Amino acid sequence: DGCPSGLKIDKDFIQSELDRRRPGAAKRTQDGTASLNPAVTARNEADSVEILSGIFEGKSTGTPIALLIRNTNQNSSDYEAIKDIYRPGHADFTYMQKYGRRDYRGGGRSSGRETCARVAAGAIAKLLLKEKGILVKAFTEKVGDISIDEGYFDFKIDDIESDPLRCPNKEVSKKMQEKIALLKKEGNSIGGVVGCIVRGERGEPLVEALAGLGEPVFDKCDALIAQAILSIGAIKGIEFGEGFKAAESLGSENNDPMSMSGGSAPTFITNKAGGTLGGITTGYPIIFRAAVKPVPSIRIKQKTITEWKEDCDIMIEGRHDVCLCPRIVPVIEAMTAITIADLYLRNKTARLTDVLKNQAPYGIPE
Amino acid sequence: DGCPSGLKIDKDFIQSELDRRRPGAAKRTQDGTASLNPAVTARNEADSVEILSGIFEGKSTGTPIALLIRNTNQNSSDYEAIKDIYRPGHADFTYMQKYGRRDYRGGGRSSGRETCARVAAGAIAKLLLKEKGILVKAFTEKVGDISIDEGYFDFKIDDIESDPLRCPNKEVSKKMQEKIALLKKEGNSIGGVVGCIVRGERGEPLVEALAGLGEPVFDKCDALIAQAILSIGAIKGIEFGEGFKAAESLGSENNDPMSMSGGSAPTFITNKAGGTLGGITTGYPIIFRAAVKPVPSIRIKQKTITEWKEDCDIMIEGRHDVCLCPRIVPVIEAMTAITIADLYLRNKTARLTDVLKNQAPYGIPE
Amino acid sequence: DGCPSGLKIDKDFIQSELDRRRPGAAKRTQDGTASLNPAVTARNEADSVEILSGIFEGKSTGTPIALLIRNTNQNSSDYEAIKDIYRPGHADFTYMQKYGRRDYRGGGRSSGRETCARVAAGAIAKLLLKEKGILVKAFTEKVGDISIDEGYFDFKIDDIESDPLRCPNKEVSKKMQEKIALLKKEGNSIGGVVGCIVRGERGEPLVEALAGLGEPVFDKCDALIAQAILSIGAIKGIEFGEGFKAAESLGSENNDPMSMSGGSAPTFITNKAGGTLGGITTGYPIIFRAAVKPVPSIRIKQKTITEWKEDCDIMIEGRHDVCLCPRIVPVIEAMTAITIADLYLRNKTARLTDVLKNQAPYGIPE
Amino acid sequence: DGCPSGLKIDKDFIQSELDRRRPGAAKRTQDGTASLNPAVTARNEADSVEILSGIFEGKSTGTPIALLIRNTNQNSSDYEAIKDIYRPGHADFTYMQKYGRRDYRGGGRSSGRETCARVAAGAIAKLLLKEKGILVKAFTEKVGDISIDEGYFDFKIDDIESDPLRCPNKEVSKKMQEKIALLKKEGNSIGGVVGCIVRGERGEPLVEALAGLGEPVFDKCDALIAQAILSIGAIKGIEFGEGFKAAESLGSENNDPMSMSGGSAPTFITNKAGGTLGGITTGYPIIFRAAVKPVPSIRIKQKTITEWKEDCDIMIEGRHDVCLCPRIVPVIEAMTAITIADLYLRNKTARLTDVLKNQAPYGIPE
Repeated sequence: DGCPSGLKIDKDFIQSELDRRRPGAAKRTQDGTASLNPAVTARNEADSVEILSGIFEGKSTGTPIALLIRNTNQNSSDYEAIKDIYRPGHADFTYMQKYGRRDYRGGGRSSGRETCARVAAGAIAKLLLKEKGILVKAFTEKVGDISIDEGYFDFKIDDIESDPLRCPNKEVSKKMQEKIALLKKEGNSIGGVVGCIVRGERGEPLVEALAGLGEPVFDKCDALIAQAILSIGAIKGIEFGEGFKAAESLGSENNDPMSMSGGSAPTFITNKAGGTLGGITTGYPIIFRAAVKPVPSIRIKQKTITEWKEDCDIMIEGRHDVCLCPRIVPVIEAMTAITIADLYLRNKTARLTDVLKNQAPYGIPE
Repeated sequence: DGCPSGLKIDKDFIQSELDRRRPGAAKRTQDGTASLNPAVTARNEADSVEILSGIFEGKSTGTPIALLIRNTNQNSSDYEAIKDIYRPGHADFTYMQKYGRRDYRGGGRSSGRETCARVAAGAIAKLLLKEKGILVKAFTEKVGDISIDEGYFDFKIDDIESDPLRCPNKEVSKKMQEKIALLKKEGNSIGGVVGCIVRGERGEPLVEALAGLGEPVFDKCDALIAQAILSIGAIKGIEFGEGFKAAESLGSENNDPMSMSGGSAPTFITNKAGGTLGGITTGYPIIFRAAVKPVPSIRIKQKTITEWKEDCDIMIEGRHDVCLCPRIVPVIEAMTAITIADLYLRNKTARLTDVLKNQAPYGIPE
Repeated sequence: DGCPSGLKIDKDFIQSELDRRRPGAAKRTQDGTASLNPAVTARNEADSVEILSGIFEGKSTGTPIALLIRNTNQNSSDYEAIKDIYRPGHADFTYMQKYGRRDYRGGGRSSGRETCARVAAGAIAKLLLKEKGILVKAFTEKVGDISIDEGYFDFKIDDIESDPLRCPNKEVSKKMQEKIALLKKEGNSIGGVVGCIVRGERGEPLVEALAGLGEPVFDKCDALIAQAILSIGAIKGIEFGEGFKAAESLGSENNDPMSMSGGSAPTFITNKAGGTLGGITTGYPIIFRAAVKPVPSIRIKQKTITEWKEDCDIMIEGRHDVCLCPRIVPVIEAMTAITIADLYLRNKTARLTDVLKNQAPYGIPE
Repeated sequence: DGCPSGLKIDKDFIQSELDRRRPGAAKRTQDGTASLNPAVTARNEADSVEILSGIFEGKSTGTPIALLIRNTNQNSSDYEAIKDIYRPGHADFTYMQKYGRRDYRGGGRSSGRETCARVAAGAIAKLLLKEKGILVKAFTEKVGDISIDEGYFDFKIDDIESDPLRCPNKEVSKKMQEKIALLKKEGNSIGGVVGCIVRGERGEPLVEALAGLGEPVFDKCDALIAQAILSIGAIKGIEFGEGFKAAESLGSENNDPMSMSGGSAPTFITNKAGGTLGGITTGYPIIFRAAVKPVPSIRIKQKTITEWKEDCDIMIEGRHDVCLCPRIVPVIEAMTAITIADLYLRNKTARLTDVLKNQAPYGIPE
């Protein structure tokens, strides 16, 4: 709900975003090099989107948009064997504590499959942001201890999607892929880090659309992004700009100085803050990193218990991802796009006057 | 709003929590060793709380509670000199972009002083949680690169408040204090990390009150804590349990196995998840760390610009904190307590039946 | 979202509620006397419900419940002729003013068909309330100036559904039906009044479940019911208890006195307030009436304009209801049930102690 | 929260609105004819407003505005005698059922005094609406069975405030005053009806600011006004436009036809709908009426019970209003202004394009 009327809705784009999240999908973006991508599962989930409401003659009507994606892949019998066992690292135990019952088929509501809906909604948010010149882009930065360099926010956006792990550095990606291939054989899994950037499409600071987003106190831009990203099941941490490195810095190092040297527009000489000050956006790129935990479903024997309070062992068979990073990239983009689109709309009521607030870049105050 | 009726409200406790947040306050918890605490400012802010509504004969009535804390310290003329300068690392620039105007006195709404209201509200949340046996405790873990050990969640709670930096390890604290004293002379500041734990008062897993908190999908327990903590101005990152270390782990290392070896109650052999699975609490301690940026107000010359788009230099005089950690500890506790108390109340509607869900620890399902 | 886990969900009941709302449906509840019910349209809308999520093994899981009802009846070409004309009494003009575009097929989002979703959700709320012994029942009280008597809240519930107009008085209903048959010939329509009552299943005051609902100040029980009912397109007014008659009363007439004459439980000697005091329920029946406007689609020539600002006439052909009352009855019940179920759940956090608040009817205070 | 930045805040206006609500206040608007106004109590409540935050240099900053009005009049001992008696028509009983305790001093949260805060907030909403040319005006239409004529929405706005009962017809007001004087002697009270209109300051349809307000489905303009008005303690009903009379009308009578006869702008020939279609505003005056119950505090013996379940009689002494209408007028205006201001701000995100939607009155669609 809340999508303004008149937005051109490209159904193919929504579908292409869903395809990016699918198991085995990254594979297909490559020219035949399927073997390079051992990170993702081989399950075939069609994830075909159907538009139920809110769109008429190709544009949003302003009323709620409903999208439907059916889970055509689920096979209840797959889960029969583990239906009364609490899988380690899964929400089986906590759902049972909370609700006294749970849908054991694929984890029910806590299944990673629910991120599908996030990606579909995120596609619409992306279309809205695109109208304003805003791009949201995530990528795999780290798998285990294999990481790309620090200066990575300079890489080419196009290099991300052409890589099977959505890592912008081919050489680093190769090492990651080798690591993953090894773990796959062992039936083990591994964590990683996904980076994300929100900025103008050509990399420039985005004054008109991207400055001033976020609300004072509780709904700061970083606070809402943090909620959005931590609401994704596998995420265990988030940091903005310098993040945990800021904890080791001096004020004289960490503050971003400003100057007019860039011409008529105020310039931030550095962007260590990652695009916000006091939780409100500067117009410079919003930058954050999210910690992704290892996939909990592994083909290795683990200790656990049953619903009936008996000790038991479990070894999870099936086609599970080794590392979630490449598939979680579109989910992180989606949640970020939804959050930024919301804040963009909320910001429309920040001022009494409707005059454009930034006729010149970073206008002189009212 | 939302505090249940019948809660005993101890006004002195609210005031004592406010005192913990005050500049110079940590000092007073020590026996005359005021010089040991150079981290916090010398300003004298009374922060006296007045109860306006919602409490009758010492107990909550169930209707909204209003508390008033006046800022008796602010002196507008202090800010006259910098009223049209954008201070680096502050929200001056972003508020001006968003609103076309700003209250320059002490940063207005974006001032750290607003955390005072959070601490007062948090005190009431703590009283509610205490009734259920839940304790929320934060502490300074790291200042710059000086850090306590990893196994630190074993320390004694009492050691925190007796330390001027609220660091549970006296030896480490001493090194931190020396670092801070040095930076104070230079007029510089430094960041740090604050840890926080939510658990039973005696350290035991808390089945009845602390298991099952958090909602599926968007309002996961970790997601809401992340929003709450990132909504504090100086915070740049958060991680739960193993956090960013989970990104470097294997599934076989990161999953927390369970067993019945502890007797009648299910036992988590490790707690790497930091107290949640699928965003819902296990009953084991909720553990997180937050990255605190260096105080942006420093007595060192920095480049910046004015509202009128002119380059200028700024050097911020005045009595500013060197490191926010000790004073942000009660703020982090408050935001955490508010979040957990909310989720505790929301959880009351999780099941149709009103029977106690956990007559035996971690009951057999319905 | 928010339905507690463990609620038995009877899909047939949801479907039967949808059937009550369907055009032509009231007819079928009678034994072949279809001609008695000229009030409703002859369109055949299947309104078949599909459960998408939130229910497992016949019970709610506690996670969001999604239901899908497809509109299999809509024929876009039906609306081609009027697609750029603003139909009098419809939302065509206002949607165009708001959004700059509109889905003209059947009124789009403003179509009465959207009440279908309300009825489906309301069925689940009714199941929840039924567990607590609460019944929600609406009926046709008035069509034009033909009305049942004042003392009508004494009628038998069963008499409602057996009547084609859902009017509990057969004789009055007969006159209403004659009026409607006449108007049908003329192509005109007529308004009416629907009454609604929320009470214990056997008519008794419901202390445990139905007292104490509603929140102080803005979310009073009557305020939320008023929003819920006025959000139904055709409703133009609502009154609780004596309602507009209270405006003509003296305080000595309008106050409901209490006594202990009924035995151990406090008794309200009258219920002119209609079940609330200060917006919070007494446990006595909640009683309100809603004004239903005449169906705006009539087969009579009316003046209006086109989107292109030209005068024109319009005469709306098609199978439209003459009087909405019988079909709006289940919609009013649904919105009321949803509101009461929400307040019931919210009320679970009113008190700190979990002990049953009313062991004896209307217990002595804590 | 949510007031845009840059709004000129006239503190005197806020105070003057509060003065309109005060007991005995209407009196002072007359030239010495204090005896003419027996409707309101003689208590002296200063209701002095203090601005705590959100305003800087006379304008809103965009951040939350806090206002404080202290209750300087309350005398706890006034209520000692009735502290364990449930006053008929009051919320004493229901608060006790809900919370197990209550603040008996003046009704606590359920006291009519809380409307003071609504009036203060409403004053700010009125200032916002005034900037857009929107006027909100309420008046006493009926006291008991004494009522002004139907065509009353033509009266002069200025005639309202100059009347002690805020009734725009002096002759009718005189009869009302006589009735009230009589009841005052008897210690009784009486109900009434308050009308309210939202329109352009000069009475014209307000296209740019007042068309398109309200959201589809649940947050219709009428639904939100209904909630806002029914959340005022003494209100028992509301109707929009023809309201309950629409229930007696034919479609051919009730539909508002349109024409272009008024020139370039679409004209509604009648406004029986009361300013909305499908819950969204047409730009024509929003018109509603609210039923006000008699003041429950009367100096006449009534039957009731104590908290301890004993029968007793009660006769409420003290200076209570006879008829709430004149004092509830500013409260109804305030709640309406807040609702319309909110919808005005929400409407800013209805369309993707920021171009003015109505360059010409009622523009041709996009």
